[in-house]
Amino acid sequence: MSAAVTVAALCERFGFASNADAGLAISGVQTLARASVTDLSFLANPQYRQAAKASSAGLIIATEADASWLDRPCLISRNPYAGFARVAALFEPRADVLPGIHPSAVIDTRASVDPSASIGPLVTIGARSVIAAGAQIGPGCVIGEDCVVGADTTLVARVTLVKRVRLGARVLIHPGAVLGADGFGLAFDQGAWLKVPQLGGVLIGDDCEIGANTTIDRGALDDTILEADVRLDNQIQIGHNVQIGAHTAIAGCTAIAGSAKIGRYCLIAGGAGVVGHIEICDKVTVAAMSLVTHSIKTPGEYASGTPLQLKQDWRKNAVRFKELDTLARRIRKLPGD
Amino acid sequence: MSAAVTVAALCERFGFASNADAGLAISGVQTLARASVTDLSFLANPQYRQAAKASSAGLIIATEADASWLDRPCLISRNPYAGFARVAALFEPRADVLPGIHPSAVIDTRASVDPSASIGPLVTIGARSVIAAGAQIGPGCVIGEDCVVGADTTLVARVTLVKRVRLGARVLIHPGAVLGADGFGLAFDQGAWLKVPQLGGVLIGDDCEIGANTTIDRGALDDTILEADVRLDNQIQIGHNVQIGAHTAIAGCTAIAGSAKIGRYCLIAGGAGVVGHIEICDKVTVAAMSLVTHSIKTPGEYASGTPLQLKQDWRKNAVRFKELDTLARRIRKLPGD
Amino acid sequence: MSAAVTVAALCERFGFASNADAGLAISGVQTLARASVTDLSFLANPQYRQAAKASSAGLIIATEADASWLDRPCLISRNPYAGFARVAALFEPRADVLPGIHPSAVIDTRASVDPSASIGPLVTIGARSVIAAGAQIGPGCVIGEDCVVGADTTLVARVTLVKRVRLGARVLIHPGAVLGADGFGLAFDQGAWLKVPQLGGVLIGDDCEIGANTTIDRGALDDTILEADVRLDNQIQIGHNVQIGAHTAIAGCTAIAGSAKIGRYCLIAGGAGVVGHIEICDKVTVAAMSLVTHSIKTPGEYASGTPLQLKQDWRKNAVRFKELDTLARRIRKLPGD
Repeated sequence: MSAAVTVAALCERFGFASNADAGLAISGVQTLARASVTDLSFLANPQYRQAAKASSAGLIIATEADASWLDRPCLISRNPYAGFARVAALFEPRADVLPGIHPSAVIDTRASVDPSASIGPLVTIGARSVIAAGAQIGPGCVIGEDCVVGADTTLVARVTLVKRVRLGARVLIHPGAVLGADGFGLAFDQGAWLKVPQLGGVLIGDDCEIGANTTIDRGALDDTILEADVRLDNQIQIGHNVQIGAHTAIAGCTAIAGSAKIGRYCLIAGGAGVVGHIEICDKVTVAAMSLVTHSIKTPGEYASGTPLQLKQDWRKNAVRFKELDTLARRIRKLPGD
Repeated sequence: MSAAVTVAALCERFGFASNADAGLAISGVQTLARASVTDLSFLANPQYRQAAKASSAGLIIATEADASWLDRPCLISRNPYAGFARVAALFEPRADVLPGIHPSAVIDTRASVDPSASIGPLVTIGARSVIAAGAQIGPGCVIGEDCVVGADTTLVARVTLVKRVRLGARVLIHPGAVLGADGFGLAFDQGAWLKVPQLGGVLIGDDCEIGANTTIDRGALDDTILEADVRLDNQIQIGHNVQIGAHTAIAGCTAIAGSAKIGRYCLIAGGAGVVGHIEICDKVTVAAMSLVTHSIKTPGEYASGTPLQLKQDWRKNAVRFKELDTLARRIRKLPGD
Repeated sequence: MSAAVTVAALCERFGFASNADAGLAISGVQTLARASVTDLSFLANPQYRQAAKASSAGLIIATEADASWLDRPCLISRNPYAGFARVAALFEPRADVLPGIHPSAVIDTRASVDPSASIGPLVTIGARSVIAAGAQIGPGCVIGEDCVVGADTTLVARVTLVKRVRLGARVLIHPGAVLGADGFGLAFDQGAWLKVPQLGGVLIGDDCEIGANTTIDRGALDDTILEADVRLDNQIQIGHNVQIGAHTAIAGCTAIAGSAKIGRYCLIAGGAGVVGHIEICDKVTVAAMSLVTHSIKTPGEYASGTPLQLKQDWRKNAVRFKELDTLARRIRKLPGD
């Protein structure tokens, strides 16, 4: 965490231009509304231009056009939000994490832990699992058998890697996430369910982030795969043998059913669903709580659902949904159609 | 857990009136259908009046009108369900929780634990966190850095407070809940995602209840805030910088996206969604699996969605939804409209 | 895990017929696309018939008709997917689990653990809980008070049984699942919420499977009940006093509200919802993300929702949903209707 940093230092480090005094220093970051004269804030969304004008912030990151219009001390960036993210990282409190294995951790003798990795209290690591250099395994994590945790990857706390889970470098996994549990594979036979063994694993690319209480099942025969830089929010369910392309981001509580294949640079909003065994091409956006029931071959924005209404109005319309086909047939029969 | 309690004692303690013998004693609580002569039951929903008439319960909590109609031993309350809740609490088995720190817990030397608090087995507590008087931290909980657990607050088991989480008094959190994980903040820059540091915290008011496997992210700059007496069921997702007003209750599997602001005395049913950056005023009810996509400024009940049908019928109607605008335009052009 | 197994051995063990050489051996299982000459694969779905023709698999499980058409070495089964599940189990790597209690586990002196059970590291077991013969309790599990874990039941890792949870024999529970947390029972009284004690338990029948991060609340007065062979995927929420009939399977992220009763042999897809206090009869199928708002008395397939569209098209139709009743009334008034 920095104490204070000057405009000159920020420009040098991140390549910003600036209209501000090179010696002007900020000691924190804040929202436009709450910033004080020692804080840096940012203007990315045009609807906050008046708030930026009125802000007490000592320094604001803005586009060249906005900086000119604001006519106050600014850092200039083509992507102010990304610029803000980089500066804010300077002020993020860092826990002091020391390399080594906490004495309360239970490590199988056949596991391998790099000396520069940090294994927190009450962690368990199973046979043949490998923890690479610089990895941080926070308190209460359970790592089963045959897992790999890549270099500089962090499991914040209470993460479970069940088995055959391989994580790339710089992956970040939040508490309660479960990777590598059995896929939901069942055969119906003689009046009861028969479990189908789940013999695959999970493969997570570099720079992925996995949210709290998200679950990613391991594959039935092949692996479940996230390519690099996939970003998953909290409470997402990823079924067995799903594949997700690089740079795709998915918001909370979305469920992707088994063997679905999702492209690169997709954005899937919260509470959405994708049924199994379909393909979504690159650069598809899916709206909140929409259900994708068939493959999508054209990039674009997709949605399903109905608008929110007062319940008394909604009820009248919803009941008419049941006669929609009848109504449509009636209209199609009208003269002139 | 009480052995038996008399009508006189219940009336004195909770202010009930009664038509029953003051010395009549009950030794448990049960549903109307399963109650025996030593049990107390309750009649709150009018559709159970016949069940109350037929019940073998020794004593029934009911309104004055229902008690009169039932013409059997009753406790009289304007709110029989609340009255039942109070009596039932007498019969709840209590685990014997002793103050002190279990020897298997791992407590940072810079943390502070009140001597009257109970820290269960295999708990970890990080630097600068404070556990107040009477708090109970159940087995397997992980409390990170800079957290506060208020007086008489209970973390049942395996709860995670990641960092900068401050809980009020008498808060109850169920297993698997994760508070204070990183909000889902990303900036897209040069073809890849850049993480936006999440520098805020989580603030939970007095008397809140947080369900099993519910997640509440910490704020990006400001805090994520639940006012007093907010009640969250299981598997709810609360995004960063959300604010929820006092006495609002939310049922399971609902997701509230980042920076949404929800009023007081709202009731949000299960599986619902609220998109980010909108406001819902006080006393709004949202139906199950409805999606709130815009701010709501008028109290009332809201819903979205379509009714359940046999799939063969649903399919015919659903396909017509895609031509709804065309059909509507056709109708609007009809003579006489 | 088998090294290699012959056609003769497979036929004898599982009752397959075969057109293959009795001495032909396979040493693994694979998808049709990835199988090599030493692998067994399967043909269950007719759309994979060409893939089966082209596969390099040494042996394929198929129906008699498909085996005849394929005209290559096959095991013959009326249910090739179930047959495959049985053979695949031979090749599943098994962790070496030893009976006994890991020294880091914290077991209440009033708990009872069968000597043949395996209690993993960092497990806690509370007062009066009973672990039966052959049970496996994986790392980090928390078992509270008054629980029963039946014979040969497995808690993979980090499972929580809060209190009064009784599991049958051969139950399998995946990481992060929480059984027996308080049901969401609240009475509104004098402007605030009053907690209704949850005095019941959870009863799970033999051969059930419970997915990762799934939650099953305990009952308010009666128990929450899953009959035998119920299969729950990940992140499912089961409210208090729900009853689920034998052999019902539910996919991920579905929520069943309190006191709902679901029949036997039902199939509920992912992301669906069932409101409280309703009954669904046997052999009902519910489509993904559908909401069941009333009791279902006739077996069959049910659905709700609207189809996915390009957002620009969807928006035009969705806004018309709000005038559906008006449109319908207009049509109903047309001459000839």
